[in-house]
Amino acid sequence: MNAQQLFDQIKKKGSFLCVGLDTDIQKIPAFLLDTTDPVFTFNKEIIDSTSPYTVAYKPNLAFYESLGVSGLNSLEKTVHYIRENHPDIFIIADAKRGDIGNTSSMYAKAFFKTMDFDAITVAPYMGEDSVKPFLEYKEKWVILLALTSNKGAFDFQYSKDTESGERLFELVLKTSQKWGTYQNMMYVVGATKAEELSAIRKIVPNHFLLVPGVGAQGGSLQEVAKYGLNSKCGLLVNSSRAIIYASNGNDFAIRAGEIAKETRDEMLDLLEVNSILQKQ
Amino acid sequence: MNAQQLFDQIKKKGSFLCVGLDTDIQKIPAFLLDTTDPVFTFNKEIIDSTSPYTVAYKPNLAFYESLGVSGLNSLEKTVHYIRENHPDIFIIADAKRGDIGNTSSMYAKAFFKTMDFDAITVAPYMGEDSVKPFLEYKEKWVILLALTSNKGAFDFQYSKDTESGERLFELVLKTSQKWGTYQNMMYVVGATKAEELSAIRKIVPNHFLLVPGVGAQGGSLQEVAKYGLNSKCGLLVNSSRAIIYASNGNDFAIRAGEIAKETRDEMLDLLEVNSILQKQ
Repeated sequence: MNAQQLFDQIKKKGSFLCVGLDTDIQKIPAFLLDTTDPVFTFNKEIIDSTSPYTVAYKPNLAFYESLGVSGLNSLEKTVHYIRENHPDIFIIADAKRGDIGNTSSMYAKAFFKTMDFDAITVAPYMGEDSVKPFLEYKEKWVILLALTSNKGAFDFQYSKDTESGERLFELVLKTSQKWGTYQNMMYVVGATKAEELSAIRKIVPNHFLLVPGVGAQGGSLQEVAKYGLNSKCGLLVNSSRAIIYASNGNDFAIRAGEIAKETRDEMLDLLEVNSILQKQ
Repeated sequence: MNAQQLFDQIKKKGSFLCVGLDTDIQKIPAFLLDTTDPVFTFNKEIIDSTSPYTVAYKPNLAFYESLGVSGLNSLEKTVHYIRENHPDIFIIADAKRGDIGNTSSMYAKAFFKTMDFDAITVAPYMGEDSVKPFLEYKEKWVILLALTSNKGAFDFQYSKDTESGERLFELVLKTSQKWGTYQNMMYVVGATKAEELSAIRKIVPNHFLLVPGVGAQGGSLQEVAKYGLNSKCGLLVNSSRAIIYASNGNDFAIRAGEIAKETRDEMLDLLEVNSILQKQ
């Protein structure tokens, strides 16, 4: 999927919501455990109920890997199900990969060929040759970690480079622009750092930013939109637990759909207020 | 496995060799492709021939993931085979993982419980809470990226922190020492940076260093030993392609064993010269 197609979907749905499929077998409704593939069954129901309101899904690899071969099987079925039933939805492998060139080539093959993801999250520590192999696939995307939302972000990401005066996450943003374009690279920017979003927007005015950690109706979505939106939206805002675990009962999928719709409604309003969409 | 047990194995075998199982279905001998599980068959043969000379195996996750479910199946069988037949050998998941706390917990479960690895390589970009969950498992290890051997290492790892005057890889070494000890943390240090090894040894005198990228008989092994060895060895030196692809014919396992033995012989000599082992 290219940037224009993604923007078209955002306009069509009035949404820049990404639903994180952090599917934990310990947290899904107990009655699903009797099905042959509880993780896939859960995902399928969540996808069916939330797909009208979301432009992206983001399975978190760790949750599938923790179940071994059966987890990977559930993941492959999930990606296939989205592709078959919702071909316009963007699918992100939240995998935080990154290794020397020949190894990153293998990861790129794993996520873009063996599985049919549109994008993968990549850690920048190992630099250019660890990222480039992912960029060799047409209409596939790297989503590079810049500033993350966790406490540990303060350990290294704010380290100020003596030579350039840039903090590490700024150095990552600037350096990596030589590797790809806004047509094949996005950046992870932690939502709890809304005050830094405007600084980041100055460095990468055109790139999509993937913003994790925004709750269903938290005021933070307003903040993120205020500092993060550009003329082609330029944001994917992820919500995982607030949507997929909205209910633990028989109505889990219905409730997930309702929360996704509420989030979409708020996003639609933000897109209109900021003149990215015309008011209907 | 704890540090003393690992050192005992090093003394027993006169080796600090780690064999990297970067098993690429495109590169293994063609006649293996007729077996039901070529990747596992290849690994099994390599393990049988090299195990007398190596203290660790390091499957590279990307190569298995690129094959999807069947690759993960081959990996699980490989780990199980080593455990069953060579219970004293240290098994490293070269996976370069690292994510927010609840996600790293899932990765830790994947590699330490679902699969029975002794150690996993972890990328430091996301800081303390991305690493800590791996350290909660008794006698399991984090091998944190410090200075890698690839060209991209120069993009960020040498960035000099204004406040501390440390380069990023030094900041990672120093900061991470608050998270674990030399009993549950090692560091990846690229072998091509032998000149930096002595500086690194000053920061982490007691920790094991995992050194990738040393060829079978390259003089670089001498350099690495000169600056990297400590009184309890403190080194695991990895060799992948030079060993596992030493031959592409019927004799691939025999040749792998020969190269592993030659490497072990050189290591034994280095352990003796440096008085870590008594000359026999």
